[in-house]
Parts: sequence; structure tokens; C-alpha cells
Amino acid sequence: MAAARRLVVIGGDAAGMSAASAARRLRGERELEIVAFERGGFSSYSACGIPYWVGGTVGSRDALIARSPQQHRERGIDLRMHTEVTEIDPDGGRVRARNSADGTESWTSYDDLVIATGAKPLRPPLPGLDADGVHGVQTLEDGQALLDALERRERTGLGRAAPDGGRQRAVVVGASYIGAEMAEAMVRRGYAVTVVDRAPQPMATLDPDMGELVRDAMCELGIEVVGDAPVTGVETGPDGRARAVRTDRAAHPADVVVLGLGVAPETTLAERAGLPLGESGGLLTDLAMRVRGHGNVWAGGDCVEVLDRVAGRLRHVPLGTHANKQGQVIGTNIGGGYATFPGVVGTAVTKVCDLEIARTGLLEAEAAGMGLQFVTATVESTSRAGYFPGSRPMRVKLLAERRTGRLLGTQIVGREGAGKRVDVAAVALTAGMTVEQMTALDLGYAPPFSPVWDPVLVGARRAAAAVREAAARG
Amino acid sequence: MAAARRLVVIGGDAAGMSAASAARRLRGERELEIVAFERGGFSSYSACGIPYWVGGTVGSRDALIARSPQQHRERGIDLRMHTEVTEIDPDGGRVRARNSADGTESWTSYDDLVIATGAKPLRPPLPGLDADGVHGVQTLEDGQALLDALERRERTGLGRAAPDGGRQRAVVVGASYIGAEMAEAMVRRGYAVTVVDRAPQPMATLDPDMGELVRDAMCELGIEVVGDAPVTGVETGPDGRARAVRTDRAAHPADVVVLGLGVAPETTLAERAGLPLGESGGLLTDLAMRVRGHGNVWAGGDCVEVLDRVAGRLRHVPLGTHANKQGQVIGTNIGGGYATFPGVVGTAVTKVCDLEIARTGLLEAEAAGMGLQFVTATVESTSRAGYFPGSRPMRVKLLAERRTGRLLGTQIVGREGAGKRVDVAAVALTAGMTVEQMTALDLGYAPPFSPVWDPVLVGARRAAAAVREAAARG
Repeated sequence: MAAARRLVVIGGDAAGMSAASAARRLRGERELEIVAFERGGFSSYSACGIPYWVGGTVGSRDALIARSPQQHRERGIDLRMHTEVTEIDPDGGRVRARNSADGTESWTSYDDLVIATGAKPLRPPLPGLDADGVHGVQTLEDGQALLDALERRERTGLGRAAPDGGRQRAVVVGASYIGAEMAEAMVRRGYAVTVVDRAPQPMATLDPDMGELVRDAMCELGIEVVGDAPVTGVETGPDGRARAVRTDRAAHPADVVVLGLGVAPETTLAERAGLPLGESGGLLTDLAMRVRGHGNVWAGGDCVEVLDRVAGRLRHVPLGTHANKQGQVIGTNIGGGYATFPGVVGTAVTKVCDLEIARTGLLEAEAAGMGLQFVTATVESTSRAGYFPGSRPMRVKLLAERRTGRLLGTQIVGREGAGKRVDVAAVALTAGMTVEQMTALDLGYAPPFSPVWDPVLVGARRAAAAVREAAARG
Repeated sequence: MAAARRLVVIGGDAAGMSAASAARRLRGERELEIVAFERGGFSSYSACGIPYWVGGTVGSRDALIARSPQQHRERGIDLRMHTEVTEIDPDGGRVRARNSADGTESWTSYDDLVIATGAKPLRPPLPGLDADGVHGVQTLEDGQALLDALERRERTGLGRAAPDGGRQRAVVVGASYIGAEMAEAMVRRGYAVTVVDRAPQPMATLDPDMGELVRDAMCELGIEVVGDAPVTGVETGPDGRARAVRTDRAAHPADVVVLGLGVAPETTLAERAGLPLGESGGLLTDLAMRVRGHGNVWAGGDCVEVLDRVAGRLRHVPLGTHANKQGQVIGTNIGGGYATFPGVVGTAVTKVCDLEIARTGLLEAEAAGMGLQFVTATVESTSRAGYFPGSRPMRVKLLAERRTGRLLGTQIVGREGAGKRVDVAAVALTAGMTVEQMTALDLGYAPPFSPVWDPVLVGARRAAAAVREAAARG
């Protein structure tokens, strides 16, 4: 019998362990040895769940762990925790890894390599960003450190009320997904929350007019939103702890600072190994998730660039759902099957308390940047028949290409029942539908579920009318 | 100036008044005179909302009325209530109508005619079906009669408790949409509810295995579901009132009987006028909703047959959402624009208390009847990330064509968050996607909204695997 081939995986989270699991389902241990290195202490966890754990919505850290290291090992994956890969040698077909417990380093050769090193939080080189009391929320370790700090404050009484009798203050830096979600988390923990962002409106992933809706709704939730305010540093007190977040115009007092500035691909190792990186610094792969120019090196998750099928270009879209799909594709291919990741259309959904925020496709600025001419349509509708109890308002905005009428993007801001409606637009985008075609979509209708015209269809009708009007103008 | 053309509309509900309104938006009163005849006393109301009004979820009848006769008249539509069209004369281009107040009849000529006569409830010729205490719920008048009867019983104490001290009993005949919704309504009013149906499982619009789930869930809600039980008649007491619903095997005592047997197209007038009808008795139209062979006669809503785009054949699909779309198409065309109704994919959603039930596309029996070979995949998943509070289970079943892998149908039964997920499948069906293509759909993901693999994608993965396995077998 031939010796087993060896698959080495760098990174024990979504993409890496999905790849390992999918390969293992296709190939037994006699055919394929799987070694996975994870520098941290957790595997296969939901980073997207961290804000809900910190905010107390999710009761325990363990709830976020989909599969523990032990469970992976029971499935025949040699997952080595607290072991950081320090070098990739593609020519030699090997990686060097250091065990952080004893500091020993060793080389492991591979037949196939999966790079799933994830992303690193953006931390601009500003004074005070490393001070005590400043927290990122990228990993479970980060979340635990923040939670420990918050609970310590609450235990010692510091967290209950500020010296002036007011509430403790949290300043969240960054007002997109992670920032908005952490704002909710800190509100839930009883903090007076200020969100500071360089953009004029929160959610830079929305057009400004839709972002304004989010800002207004966040204000109603008691969250102070400060826009047009790039952070210039974190001010520390005599004890070295953060005490305010500084911008050009103000100092925002803070008992705790949370950084929610987004992430960049973690491709330091890949870059050193000479692997091809794109504009964002993410690894470049083919559609089977093979690193370009390397037959036996694969990459997936937050460290790669993916094809934006609407924009027709590569971008960095760090999302757990893509990481899982890409891992599945990689594992299938390594296991001898065939699968591809055809790209994304840019769908994202989040919420701040009961406010639901969703988008897919291109924003106005993105479309204009691609040289596209388009019309927009914005409508107000409701989640259920207007007369049905619990019906909540939502605003839907559609972009459609001029002349062709092809859907280019959709944004939705509303309450319960708003967010997941973006899926209809995501599928329509994938299928290349025009907004006129969308007006005839046979969506589920009953009074508890939708008005007789679903909000997305109301938007499509308005957009189709705008396309016709633009056509009439030439 | 040329005299105004005249549009005559038969039927003052969804399709008819949507057509009238759309035409009016395009053509002013000097260009187009619009006369609409409605035999009842209400216009433009949500028949789908009747169960929720009877059940008390919706507080008033007027809430169900989208636009009153007066509001239509203010928009330049001469809507004549309590006026029944008794004859269509297509050769003469005129209709005869009778005013039920004074019994007078007169002819009105038209340049364009819209037939929107809706549907009539199925009432098999069984003894006792016309007895006191037996109620249909097709029109607002029906709903009002039922509600009046229930409130009279409750006022007189009859509705509070049966003579034996138990709850009053309601028997609902028919266990599909309207039957299931009326079962919920009667539960909400405090009745002990029995649903009797000829099919083995409730919701004959689902496959039997999915229908079983519904039956089990209805039982948990305290609703008695009796299947395989065609009704043979309604037994009346000495006072002439219904007192039991009879089947071959049993008599189900009833203080009130609700008929929820579905509907057939109301095309008596059209048939007498020699207009073309399909197998179901519905009017046949082209894609612009023009009655076949008649350049100036249009039809829409519950009285027409529509193209089922998945089955590739015509069927009768009485749903308010289609009626509104078809009316919009008709009015646009009459107004000098251009629009078509390209057909349906068979989407429907409903709920019984907190149970959500949805389908789109073909059932197993329907697909087999079309000569299609297919695989099925059924999965259990949840509405949110499993660890997120409020996450509820759902079962998703997909049918995919053998060889091509094309999605043929989707059924979902679950709780909150289950029903509207069918929209993703509805759009995928419209676009002709394969289940393999669906596995890569970029659907909105965040823990409060979905597991990292949306339930529909989990189903698509399983179905894609089944397609591959079937291919391997040849």
C-alpha cells in the first residue's frame, strides 16, 4: 500500500477546519493524513458571535465553539493547538511550526497545503491604542479579555456608576459591522455608548442616505454616533489606562474602548513565501481555491480575495459564511472531488438592537467607480400586511443599471423582518436579473409574512419605472 | 377632441381595481373613462386577512380594506357597488349589469373589458352544507356572517361552554391554507377545533412526509386533525342548525362548521359568453393577460389560469399577490404601456399559530406526473445560529431533477424564520438554477439571522450530493 498523502492546514478556524473535515469525509486516515496548526487555543468558533457573547445575549464562550480540538481529533484530524506556523517553504513542500508551550520548532512536509490564516484587526499606528482598557474583538481570546475586564470593573463596583453618578462610558471606534454590533453589546451591558467613525454616517457599507437612517435609529437607541471624526489617539491617565478617545475636534471620555475597525488579510507568511497577493493583501486563488501558480497550495477564508460577481473584480470580503464555503470547496478538491467557489455578490446583514441592516451588490459609489451608469429607487414598505400586528416599517433601496435594467445592488434598513429579505436580491443578482424581471417574482405572500407586494418587489417596481424614465431621456 | 375610451371592469377586488388604478395612473379621465361593477358591498380588500380578523388578531373589518369605493371614486373610477354583471356580449362590446338595490338592468358598452370575477368556494353537493351554522370564509360578507354568529353565541352564553361543561366545538372542513388558517382562528376564539380532510395529511400542497410534520405540530397546538376522511354531510338538529360533520367513519360534533375547501374560478359569465376556459375552468389569457382570441378583453386574478413556469403548464393559482400583479399588468397595457405576467413558480406560505409552512415549485407527485425524474433531500436546520437565543428548528426539503440537477421544488416547515426562506428557492427556481449552483449562493449571514450555512443552503448541499449519487448510478 502506498503511504498516506499528508494534508497540512494552517489555521484551525472556519476555512481551515471546514477544508480538513470535507477532505476527511472523502478520504480515510489510511489515504490522507491531516495535520492542522492553530496558534491560538480555540478551534472552529464563531467569531461573528463574539459581540453577542460580550453583550450577554449568548451565555457562554463554549456556545460559540462549533467543534473543539478534541472533536476534530476524534475525526482523525491531528489538530495541534498553540502551534504557530512561522514559515512556508513552497518549493520544499514544508512548513515550520513553533509550539508556544516549549518554544520548539520543527518542519512538517505536506503533499497539499491549506492556508487559512484569517485576518488581522486594523490598528492604525496611533498613540495609546495599545493601552490598558483598549480592546479588539477579533478572537475568542480578545473577547475573553474584554469580558474579564468588564466583569472585573463590575465586581469592583467600577462598572456600576461613574464617579459623577452617571453611567460608565464605552467608546467604540468604527461604525461598521463589528463596531455597530459592539455598540449593541455595550448598551446591553449598561454602558453609555459613543461610536466614533471617520465616515460621515455609520455603516460605510451602505450608501450615505441609508447610513443616515442607521445613525438616526442608533441615536433613538441611545447610542451617540460621531461621524466625520477620524480617531487621532487614545488618551491615557496616570495609571496608563485609556481614559478618552481623541479626534481632531473632541476628546470622548471612555472607561473602556472597543476597536471595531475592520480587518485586513493575515498573509504575512504567504507574502514571505512569495505567494501571489492582490491589492488588498489577500491571497489570489483560482475558482477551485488553489493559490495561483501553485498546484498543491490552497487558501480560503479571511486571508483570500474573492471574485465579486457584480463588480467583476476581486475584493477582500471577510465573512464566516464564505470561509465555510471555501473550506468545503478546498476539502472537496483535495479529497478527489470537484468543487468551485464562484464568488460573492457582496451580501451582508447585521443588527443593532432591533434595527436590521442589510446590503448586497454595489453601492452607488462602487457602481460609479466601475464606470456603470445606474438609476436608484428607494421605497418605504412594511414587513407584514400593514394591518397585521407586528408589521414593521422598512426602507429598501435598489440600484439598477441604466439601459439594461440589471439589478446592481440592494440595501435594506428596518426592524424585524427586514434583514433577510436581502436574500431575494442576492439570488436575483447572482442570476443577473433585471429589476423588471424581479417585479414578477413569485415570493411567498400571506398577511403575517408580507404585504401583498413584498417590499423588495415594491422597490423593483419603482426601479423598473426609473429605468424606463431614464431610457426615455436617451 | 376624441371622446374618451371606456374601460369596463367586472369585479371590484384585487385584480380588477389594480387594473383600474394602473390604467388611471397612465390615462386621465379625458382619455379614459373607467366603470367598475362590484356585486358585493366591499372593494379592494384582503380576503387573505379574513381568518386573522375572525380570530381576533386583526381588530376590525375595515383594516382589511385597502381602498374604499369612495377612495376609488375620488381617483376617477366610477365604481358601482352592489351591481352584478349578468351578461358579457363580446361581439357587441358591452356588458349587462343589474343593480341589486332596485333590480334595474342596463347595458354598458366598453372599448376594453377586464374580467376579474374571482373565485367561488368549492361546495360539494352534500346534505346539510347549507344549514345554519355552516360558514364559508370567501368574502368579507362571509367573514362578517361568521363573526356575527360567533359573537351572538358568545353574548348569549352559548359560546362560553358546551352543555357538558366542555369547550364549544368548531369543525373545519378542509386542511389546506384556508382550513389551516381558520383552525388557528377558532383556536384563538377558544374553541375545541377539529379539522377534517379527505387527504391523509393536512396541507395537500406539501408532500406527505412534510404534511405529517404539520399534522404533528397542529396536534401539539391542540387541534384534532382527522385525515383520510371525506365529508359525507353535515348533520342538523331539530332546529335546523348544524350539529355534526359526518364522514364515512365518524360524526364530529360541531357547534359551528367552517368550510375551507378551496375555490374554483368564477367564470360563469365568461363561459356563457363563449370565452376560452382551461381545464380548471379558469380563463385562458396570453402573457399580457389578454383573453385569448379577444383583443380588447382582459382577465386577471382568481378567475384565470396562469403559467406554472416549473411545470410548464397552466394551472389555477388563486392568490392575492398574483391578482395584484396581473391587475397591474392589465392596467399598464390598457393604459398604453407594456407589461406581461410571466407566470408563477408555485410559491405559497402560511402559518398555524407559530408553525410556519411554505412551499414553492413542484411536489414529488407533481414532478412524477410531469415525467420528471428527481432526487429529494430533507434536512433539519435552525432559523439562527444554533447558539443564538430564539433559534428555532425547521425542516427543509428540496427536489432536484436527476441529471441536470435543476431545482424543482422546496418545502419548509418550521417556526419563526422558516416561512419566508422559501423566497430564496422561489428566485432560484425562476432563474433555473441547479442545486449545485445554489450551494454557493451569497445569502445574508449573521448569528441573529442564520446559521453560517443557511438552512436552504444546507438543503441544497444535500440535494447536490443526491444528484451526484444518482449520476454515479447511471
